[in-house]
Amino acid sequence: MGTARLETFADGVFAIAATLLILDVTADARGDELGHALAHAWPSYAAYAVSFLTIGIMWVNHHACMAQIGRADRTFLFANIGLLACVAFVPFPTRLVAEHLHDDGLRAAALAYGITLTVTSVFFAAVWFYAAGPRRLIADTADPRVVRGISRSFRPGTALYGGATLVALASPTASLVLFTAIALFYVVESSIFAPRGD
Amino acid sequence: MGTARLETFADGVFAIAATLLILDVTADARGDELGHALAHAWPSYAAYAVSFLTIGIMWVNHHACMAQIGRADRTFLFANIGLLACVAFVPFPTRLVAEHLHDDGLRAAALAYGITLTVTSVFFAAVWFYAAGPRRLIADTADPRVVRGISRSFRPGTALYGGATLVALASPTASLVLFTAIALFYVVESSIFAPRGD
Amino acid sequence: MGTARLETFADGVFAIAATLLILDVTADARGDELGHALAHAWPSYAAYAVSFLTIGIMWVNHHACMAQIGRADRTFLFANIGLLACVAFVPFPTRLVAEHLHDDGLRAAALAYGITLTVTSVFFAAVWFYAAGPRRLIADTADPRVVRGISRSFRPGTALYGGATLVALASPTASLVLFTAIALFYVVESSIFAPRGD
Amino acid sequence: MGTARLETFADGVFAIAATLLILDVTADARGDELGHALAHAWPSYAAYAVSFLTIGIMWVNHHACMAQIGRADRTFLFANIGLLACVAFVPFPTRLVAEHLHDDGLRAAALAYGITLTVTSVFFAAVWFYAAGPRRLIADTADPRVVRGISRSFRPGTALYGGATLVALASPTASLVLFTAIALFYVVESSIFAPRGD
Repeated sequence: MGTARLETFADGVFAIAATLLILDVTADARGDELGHALAHAWPSYAAYAVSFLTIGIMWVNHHACMAQIGRADRTFLFANIGLLACVAFVPFPTRLVAEHLHDDGLRAAALAYGITLTVTSVFFAAVWFYAAGPRRLIADTADPRVVRGISRSFRPGTALYGGATLVALASPTASLVLFTAIALFYVVESSIFAPRGD
Repeated sequence: MGTARLETFADGVFAIAATLLILDVTADARGDELGHALAHAWPSYAAYAVSFLTIGIMWVNHHACMAQIGRADRTFLFANIGLLACVAFVPFPTRLVAEHLHDDGLRAAALAYGITLTVTSVFFAAVWFYAAGPRRLIADTADPRVVRGISRSFRPGTALYGGATLVALASPTASLVLFTAIALFYVVESSIFAPRGD
Repeated sequence: MGTARLETFADGVFAIAATLLILDVTADARGDELGHALAHAWPSYAAYAVSFLTIGIMWVNHHACMAQIGRADRTFLFANIGLLACVAFVPFPTRLVAEHLHDDGLRAAALAYGITLTVTSVFFAAVWFYAAGPRRLIADTADPRVVRGISRSFRPGTALYGGATLVALASPTASLVLFTAIALFYVVESSIFAPRGD
Repeated sequence: MGTARLETFADGVFAIAATLLILDVTADARGDELGHALAHAWPSYAAYAVSFLTIGIMWVNHHACMAQIGRADRTFLFANIGLLACVAFVPFPTRLVAEHLHDDGLRAAALAYGITLTVTSVFFAAVWFYAAGPRRLIADTADPRVVRGISRSFRPGTALYGGATLVALASPTASLVLFTAIALFYVVESSIFAPRGD
């Protein structure tokens, strides 16, 4: 079984989940207060930007993994469906964080956001290590160094997100800074997926 | 007429219908009650997970069917449009079940959910048996054993979903357990679509 | 310029517009009245089914047209964007019809629905006749009889939808029956696009 | 790394962002006032049309750029994700403009719309000049004249949108006319992307 339709389906879910994030950006205000309301709605813009970037990173990484994978079996398809269900879940905790940035609900919202990303990283690792474990679904043409590089890059993911989630118990604000930092880290740290330095 | 654009369109509807399910996961609460509200919103997470998985299973099965089908005619296209209209309908009864899990509306919601899935399985069987009946649209390269295996696997579907729907008349909760069990059954029972054992 | 990305984009808009129709199917009710509310919500199911089918028909016809078209220029791309803007508009009048089926707003809603479909059919004809006029964008491999068959089939479309729209001034209910009949006519009348009888 | 999956993902975001615009077209009214309400909702139709066209133009231009680009690296992927985050943001300021066309919020709404399009044009230029700068990612088969033509056409974009945004400080209405004029200019001025005159 090839991977073409899985990629189409996955690209669709990534694209829709990212685009639906805009539905959570709102600014309801009377006309003369709209400028003020828009200026104070910055948490929802920041939540939109970080979540769009996070989904974008997951899409780039899914892209990089699938480039090494030559075929799919049913277990792999269902592991991907679990991963995509997590990705499509991201708009919900994103909305919670944006809504509760200035009230007592921020701890619960940051925990919900962190748990979602931690579970997502577990599914992502499961998808990859199922395929790569005994080179079960790896394409014959795959470069072993790239496969090892991807395997190495998956190791810290769950710990990073899980750690930032635990920080939310002590300081929700600190955890949100960490989630943003992890996203930026993955953007900058291109070497893990590109051993040739791009 | 080829099947490439049908697959693109179908993948789009499956991906969107699954991703739209998140719009039904909500937790409106004052800040200090958000943690409590999130903990009590588990029915909507469960409904999201089961429905995403159900749509994912239908997508995998559509994938498996289309792999055996070599061409499309207008009747086949319109049968698929009927099937996709059912798939895209799933978010509505899912929301009803999540909203009414703790009140008297659960019977009606479980019936709506079950009727939707039963009608979907009827359309799915119609799509397949129209294509496979006298090998009308089957690809010349298709393996007859795989075609027979898919035909066999379609037989119980409508009866399973129809039976679980009738159970909702007596016990809505039991029917929801059955819908979840049917979904898990289709995930585990990979042999029906993969005679070679994956 | 090829047509592959136009088809991907168009398939996306058709799939999303059709799937978004479900957001307009609602049944808000207290638990003990949900069964009753669901039974009385049939106008929104009917509006969903007719509109999904109408978008599906437009997708099948777009599919049939594009199969004869071998290249795209900017004018053709923008004519398609106009067509897709109409297709993506359909969920709005659909919601109006479902909401106002039992009140005095039905005439305005039926007019809005009819005007949307009439304008859509004008754009659809413009897309086709721009491409087919002097065989401007027709593929070299296209069968002239199929091209002529499609041109012939476009002629009644605008008149049918425009006529049904005018009927809404006298009787909104009659116009809705006509819109449904036109949709079913296009499903059954497969010969216009398939001179070989499928 | 090829560009096929980037194009699928981008087409998905463009198609979804454009189609989601319809969610902002609303007309809530009692039955006997619906006709009146629909006639007075023209700002939301105009905002829908201009924004759909603007996203459509960006899609056509993305299409034209990608046709000259032969490969992608991580920087290019993330620049595209930034661009797509801007594109997916457009429905938000569009809704603000439609909602506040007749009240004191129009200045803030027009500024939000203009800033969104200006930032989008900055990202668009960054995507293109990163790829084209030292012919970093340009396909070997690309026509140098087409590449130069695209580079030239990107120069006025940010200035045009930035200028129209500044006009909103003095006259929001004038800025909206300018945004519409810029969109129509890009539709008509086909020569910039098509040196052969289409």
